[in-house]
Amino acid sequence: MTTDAAILNALRQFPGAGVSGAALSAQLGISRAAIWARIEELRRLGYEIDASPHSGYRLIAVPDALHGDDLLTRLRQPRVVGREIHVFRETTSTNDVVERMARDGLAEGVVVFAESQTRGRGRLSRRWVSSAGKGLWLSVLLRPRLQPLGATRITIAAATSLVRAVRRVVGLETEIKWPNDVLVRGRKIAGILTELAAEVDSIKHLVLGMGVNANQSASDFPAELKGLATSLRLEAGAAVDRPALAAAILEELELDYSRICDGRFDEVAAEWEQGCSTLGRPVRIQVGDRIVQGRAEALDPEGALLVRTHHGNLERVLGGDVTVLK
Amino acid sequence: MTTDAAILNALRQFPGAGVSGAALSAQLGISRAAIWARIEELRRLGYEIDASPHSGYRLIAVPDALHGDDLLTRLRQPRVVGREIHVFRETTSTNDVVERMARDGLAEGVVVFAESQTRGRGRLSRRWVSSAGKGLWLSVLLRPRLQPLGATRITIAAATSLVRAVRRVVGLETEIKWPNDVLVRGRKIAGILTELAAEVDSIKHLVLGMGVNANQSASDFPAELKGLATSLRLEAGAAVDRPALAAAILEELELDYSRICDGRFDEVAAEWEQGCSTLGRPVRIQVGDRIVQGRAEALDPEGALLVRTHHGNLERVLGGDVTVLK
Repeated sequence: MTTDAAILNALRQFPGAGVSGAALSAQLGISRAAIWARIEELRRLGYEIDASPHSGYRLIAVPDALHGDDLLTRLRQPRVVGREIHVFRETTSTNDVVERMARDGLAEGVVVFAESQTRGRGRLSRRWVSSAGKGLWLSVLLRPRLQPLGATRITIAAATSLVRAVRRVVGLETEIKWPNDVLVRGRKIAGILTELAAEVDSIKHLVLGMGVNANQSASDFPAELKGLATSLRLEAGAAVDRPALAAAILEELELDYSRICDGRFDEVAAEWEQGCSTLGRPVRIQVGDRIVQGRAEALDPEGALLVRTHHGNLERVLGGDVTVLK
Repeated sequence: MTTDAAILNALRQFPGAGVSGAALSAQLGISRAAIWARIEELRRLGYEIDASPHSGYRLIAVPDALHGDDLLTRLRQPRVVGREIHVFRETTSTNDVVERMARDGLAEGVVVFAESQTRGRGRLSRRWVSSAGKGLWLSVLLRPRLQPLGATRITIAAATSLVRAVRRVVGLETEIKWPNDVLVRGRKIAGILTELAAEVDSIKHLVLGMGVNANQSASDFPAELKGLATSLRLEAGAAVDRPALAAAILEELELDYSRICDGRFDEVAAEWEQGCSTLGRPVRIQVGDRIVQGRAEALDPEGALLVRTHHGNLERVLGGDVTVLK
């Protein structure tokens, strides 16, 4: 843990009382002057830290900006997801950054956030609008011991994690639209992009990307997304605490990823089925050149969608563009 | 086509008679002096080209070294495989080079050969010995419109292509050992490594790597491979024409790849089943931590191996380490 992370960690442990410079100095093994200098730096980053001779340092408020050290101290002992967190002011696409990290051999669990993306993308290289400082754009490096087919499970887990994190931090109920969107009242607030490098029978690494529309106002969305996209702020009627939501997403993902690794994907799938607005509905799915039409019935054990066609056959669909029919 | 390729192409069209410098000059639209200079350069590369006032230039012999232009002129109008061919004297691994090309957006069909690899590898990052100038090490960039699961088909196609190319150029019958080896009399002469980048439901690109032991002598193999690996030269009792074999592999692969793209994978699979020494045999397959034991029965439509276990169940295996039991 870095010094900044250790200081924030200590301040969070005594939210009311405060911690003296002497105590921090002893705990971290650095001089009181060094503590003072780091506190000044944190203040410059937007952290409001009160200092008084009686109660010592107290954390009053944190900035809305994402800060890797700050996020680290919010997580409860991550085993995998968020062991290492990097925040970029701007990048092409967080999935691209993590892909390079993966090829450089980094261990799974590293997370990259970007405050803005110049080439954010969704499925099939579609453009994803990423307005600076308004949303959450993050990618997680995972190395699950799964066959390529099993990658669908990770998308499913990301969706259930997003639903729980939004419920916990924002207090909003969201719905999952198969395969990779999270909606509020039919409009998109989050998307998931799972990319993998693999041999025929095993995943080498997987990059899980998520984009969450947090604090956008209506004018932040381009005209062509009107009616299709929305933000948590617009739906909840209040600004979202982005760092808190970011930390919650990583915590929930940690839970679901450990379920998958422990062979308990059925628990994730059951939760997903409860939160999914696609199931039970008549759907038309464009899969490449092909159209699958029928009733979305369930997930199969690998995370594929089972669609009952008009002929009564059960078709297994891994991905595609879904339209829910009236 | 480069000038060298055009010259070699013209010389190949008139193997006996020869082509005059004037004719070459007219055909290629460059000066006779420029033709002369390129012929000199080709001679330096090892091409034996006879020049006489009467019959003009005649191609007498080609060097054993691989030459991109030369390989191009040997292929009959490739639609995909071998549209572009690069030969490296040395590289880490041809799969790595092609992977980078894929990420740079190159079109499918580009082929990279290396005369030696410093970090050649097989499945699961295992080391692959690549002695300079003795074998064929190549990788092909493909962008098939398949789900990740369909990548198995490409490995299957590579195996059948290798079998036909070796039969045609070397006159040897080889056997396929599922999933990715080609053997002569039980010893490995070629291996296939298929790697892919994908989204959950679609392959973004695929790198098909092949390594063929062509002209190694027994002493070229490290001690630990004695009894396991062999070369075409050792088995056929004569040196192999590596450029001819390289071109044949690309031509056969072009055929099988077009079959897959045209929805005729069943033809490839039928040929594979004929050439496979694993089918019909009792096998033990290590799949990660798991052992599948039974009788290898057939390929399924995706290219996975169907194994009938002792309980009578049919298990579907995508890849693993196979031991054929006695």
